[in-house]
Parts: sequence; C-alpha cells; structure tokens
Amino acid sequence: MPFSMSQASLPSFEISLNALAAILDKAAAYAAAKKIDPAVLLHTRLSPNMFDLARQLQAAADNAKNGSARLAGVEPPRYEDNEATIDQLKARLAKTVAYLKTLDRKAIDSSAEREITFPLGPRTGHMNGADYLVHFVLPNFHFHVTAAYAILRHCGVDIAKSDYFGAIPIKTT
Amino acid sequence: MPFSMSQASLPSFEISLNALAAILDKAAAYAAAKKIDPAVLLHTRLSPNMFDLARQLQAAADNAKNGSARLAGVEPPRYEDNEATIDQLKARLAKTVAYLKTLDRKAIDSSAEREITFPLGPRTGHMNGADYLVHFVLPNFHFHVTAAYAILRHCGVDIAKSDYFGAIPIKTT
Repeated sequence: MPFSMSQASLPSFEISLNALAAILDKAAAYAAAKKIDPAVLLHTRLSPNMFDLARQLQAAADNAKNGSARLAGVEPPRYEDNEATIDQLKARLAKTVAYLKTLDRKAIDSSAEREITFPLGPRTGHMNGADYLVHFVLPNFHFHVTAAYAILRHCGVDIAKSDYFGAIPIKTT
Repeated sequence: MPFSMSQASLPSFEISLNALAAILDKAAAYAAAKKIDPAVLLHTRLSPNMFDLARQLQAAADNAKNGSARLAGVEPPRYEDNEATIDQLKARLAKTVAYLKTLDRKAIDSSAEREITFPLGPRTGHMNGADYLVHFVLPNFHFHVTAAYAILRHCGVDIAKSDYFGAIPIKTT
C-alpha cells in the first residue's frame, strides 16, 4: 500500500510550520493596527503554567525537527530558544522547514519497527518508530501548533481554521 | 514496511478519546471541589467565536468517527450534539470508541489512493485517503483534543501533558 512513515510526517510538518509563519504575519499586522507591542502577544499564555506563544512555536518546530531526525536515525541539531521577535520566530520556523528537507525519507520509511530513544525530561523514552510517530510526535506537534493558534485567537487576531490547516492538498467543489 | 493507514489512525483516536474521558473526570472533581457548576466549564471558550468545551469534545469525537468511517468506505452514523453534562459527554466519547472498533482495518489500509469526499460547510472536500488522514483528519482531531485540554487548563483544572497523551505505548527509563 502506498502509505509510508515519511508521508505521514514530513509534508504535514512543512505545511503546518509554513501555516504558523503566515499566522505570525497576521499577528504582526494585528499588533501594528492595534498599537500592541508584538512582545505582548509572544508572551501570552492560556494558563500561567503553560508555555507562552514564543515557546509554543519553538516547541512545534522542535517536535518536527527532533521527531523526524530520530526517525531518520540521525542526531537532531540543537537550536537555542532565544528568539525574541516575530521575525526571529519566523526564521526559526523556516530554518526548521529547510532542515526537514535534508532528511533521508527512506531512512524514515524503514523506521517503523526500530526502537527510538528520546529525552523525556530527566528520563529517556523508548518506543518503536511507528508508535513514536503516531502516539508521540504527531499529537505533540499538533498540540503546540494548536496552542499557538489558540493563543492568538484568544488575543483577538482574526484567523480561522483555514489558517491553522495551511496549504493542504484539498480540492473543494 | 509495517506501517499502515489504520495503524496511523484508530489506536491514536482511541487513546486520545479515552484520555479526554479521564480529563473530564478530573474536571468533574475540580468542579465539585470548587463548587463550580460543571456546565460553566462545558460552556467555556478560549475566544468568543471558538467552540466551547462541549462542542470541542463533540468535534474531536466526530473527527475520529467520520474520518475513520470515510477511510473505511462506509457512511458514518450521525450523532446528535445534544450532550449537556460531563457524564453525557463521556458516553459520547465511549460510544465513539466502540464505533471505531467496528470498522474494517483492511478497508482503511487500502484507502491511501482512493478519493475521499466529505462535507466541508456548504461545500464538498476531495482528497486522496492518505492526504485526507495526514493533512485533514489528524490535524483536525488533535486540534479539538488540544482545545478541550487547553480550555480546562485555562479554567484551572490540574492536568498535565501526560493527561493529554493518555495511555500511549511508551516505556521510560
């Protein structure tokens, strides 16, 4: 059957990371129109002990980068979480999309039964590749994309579900 | 390669829907302890024109039900969105998990290249099965699960990322 681990991961990450960049453009325009310091948006949280918008974006990007790299059997590069502006966060997203393009799809496709180990706070997580993708990487990635989107909706930015989905391959009639 | 459309969908839906039921138990306990009418939680939104908690839960369940049914090539049953209590919403989640178990995994596994058509507001969406799962059903499903979780975090319910993930097949050392 023509369905693969790389197909279930890389294109979705790329589309969603690009969708987040476009959402950030709308956030920047909103901040300018309302005379809000963009840093206020970047530091907004849905709850005091949840990540703020900047950290949600970094986490979304890192889930895509680290998850894909581990499935491909390579050590992911470590990016510092030091972005302080919308433009810097857009660059982080773009850098992540560029990194995803360097990964070997065939290595990802052959990872379904390989054991993946990954840091989990002070502990180490162990899952086979298919479980890691389906039960950890994808739910975690979409969590942080959704949280970033929801923070901006909460702040009043005029975005809709189509902004969340981004440029997915859909035809409508 | 041992990776399939059904593997990328059904087990994740079941785990997340069960995770939502456990999260609702914590929400009920929180409401009781704080003497909050549980309906207040069910009607909370992150933004005035986003779904409230009850509707987020219904949408999560329907994404799993409708997405899986369409991939299996059967017409999904339609459930009324009439739940008004936490127990009724837990029953909706359980009913959905039971429905998922009735679907033919082999039919889902052979759907990657089949065209799927689905209602999209007043229009009809068209995608092949693999794209429909990866770019529409999974991002949409995880969106509504995350939104439900985030509403309850926003309300102060003491839940953490492990509650969001639920009983995923992970070992830690």
